[in-house]
Amino acid sequence: MGNETVGIDVRTDSGPGILSRLAGVIARHQGDITSVEIVERGDQESRVYFEIDLPAGGDALIAELRDTPGVRVVERVPTLQRIYGKRIIIVGGGAQVGQVAIGAISEADRHNIRGEHISVDTIPLVGEGPLAEAVRAVTRLPRARALVLAGSLMGGDIEEAVREVRARGLLVISLNMAGSVPDSADLVVTDPIQAGVMAVMAVADTAKFSLERLKRRVF
Amino acid sequence: MGNETVGIDVRTDSGPGILSRLAGVIARHQGDITSVEIVERGDQESRVYFEIDLPAGGDALIAELRDTPGVRVVERVPTLQRIYGKRIIIVGGGAQVGQVAIGAISEADRHNIRGEHISVDTIPLVGEGPLAEAVRAVTRLPRARALVLAGSLMGGDIEEAVREVRARGLLVISLNMAGSVPDSADLVVTDPIQAGVMAVMAVADTAKFSLERLKRRVF
Repeated sequence: MGNETVGIDVRTDSGPGILSRLAGVIARHQGDITSVEIVERGDQESRVYFEIDLPAGGDALIAELRDTPGVRVVERVPTLQRIYGKRIIIVGGGAQVGQVAIGAISEADRHNIRGEHISVDTIPLVGEGPLAEAVRAVTRLPRARALVLAGSLMGGDIEEAVREVRARGLLVISLNMAGSVPDSADLVVTDPIQAGVMAVMAVADTAKFSLERLKRRVF
Repeated sequence: MGNETVGIDVRTDSGPGILSRLAGVIARHQGDITSVEIVERGDQESRVYFEIDLPAGGDALIAELRDTPGVRVVERVPTLQRIYGKRIIIVGGGAQVGQVAIGAISEADRHNIRGEHISVDTIPLVGEGPLAEAVRAVTRLPRARALVLAGSLMGGDIEEAVREVRARGLLVISLNMAGSVPDSADLVVTDPIQAGVMAVMAVADTAKFSLERLKRRVF
């Protein structure tokens, strides 16, 4: 099909209904919106960013967007998918999240040099409720591919949340820790640096590593 | 005004025009869409996630969305703003990005325990072009509040990109390094751990730190 993904940054008058109007124009061009972000919202002017799969190039769409009432400036920009790429999400206690991040960032560096695009995103959190919420919310984060749970004790509703996001196709790696979360993860790793490295290897197209080929799931 | 921000997860039939239709319903309820994400795109079913500022509660809007043709399931969920919160973005060389991340994650842990919501997101990258692109793209990342440039040598188009994003209101911290980027940043810090800590302090509502009150800009 030769579909192309374009990034388009639109500045418009502020006001209700703007997104609906822009999305309508995109739909008429058979554009499949893969990502949208309201980048700025001022009293007068707002900025909206789209990533759109298009059957043809984006020129005709950009021209029609420019002629849409309320639209001020339309600019083609590189997509976030191309720049920030796949995301590894690390959540848990600050001490462990930091060490997993060190491993993941070093490994992502080695793959990004060879043309991959992998980001390593983290949040230190305390408590079963906030952690379970963060795990569930990963499936709403754009471009998230793998989740690493970095802590010393996790169970209860966090385990339930892990099973839910795995059912939606997310890869989950857990540090070897107390609680029931390790039992529910795809992979359990004791060394936090190695956990970060393995998370990146598992999602990198430049790596030979494949979870399916592993003979054991606990390291 | 008592405006409320609601998170809404919608499963719909796949196809062009869905987003336009949903956004139209939201506009009729005076909803101000602050974030949208196409979470899943299947041949049959797609999932779209909205964060919406609403003058009243979300019940009437949710009821009308449920009655919209093509809509399968509408669910109220916690917002990403509430869970993942403000984002610190760290870009540069893997060695330094890792160290800045350690500082930022430890400091974010201390603030998140007291009710803040700060994420620390990173990407290791090589080369003037990719780094300048990543800097410019930070203004298209949702919830990004501060950028840390972590490397040993950065200048040229990266400096230009730093000036552009600062003009759009982003806080930029640079490690003390070779090249012209430190001259263009809001703050220059020599120790990478401290750079990460200061980035978090600068955006945390739970911190007393304020960049405006600093008597010097190089540490």
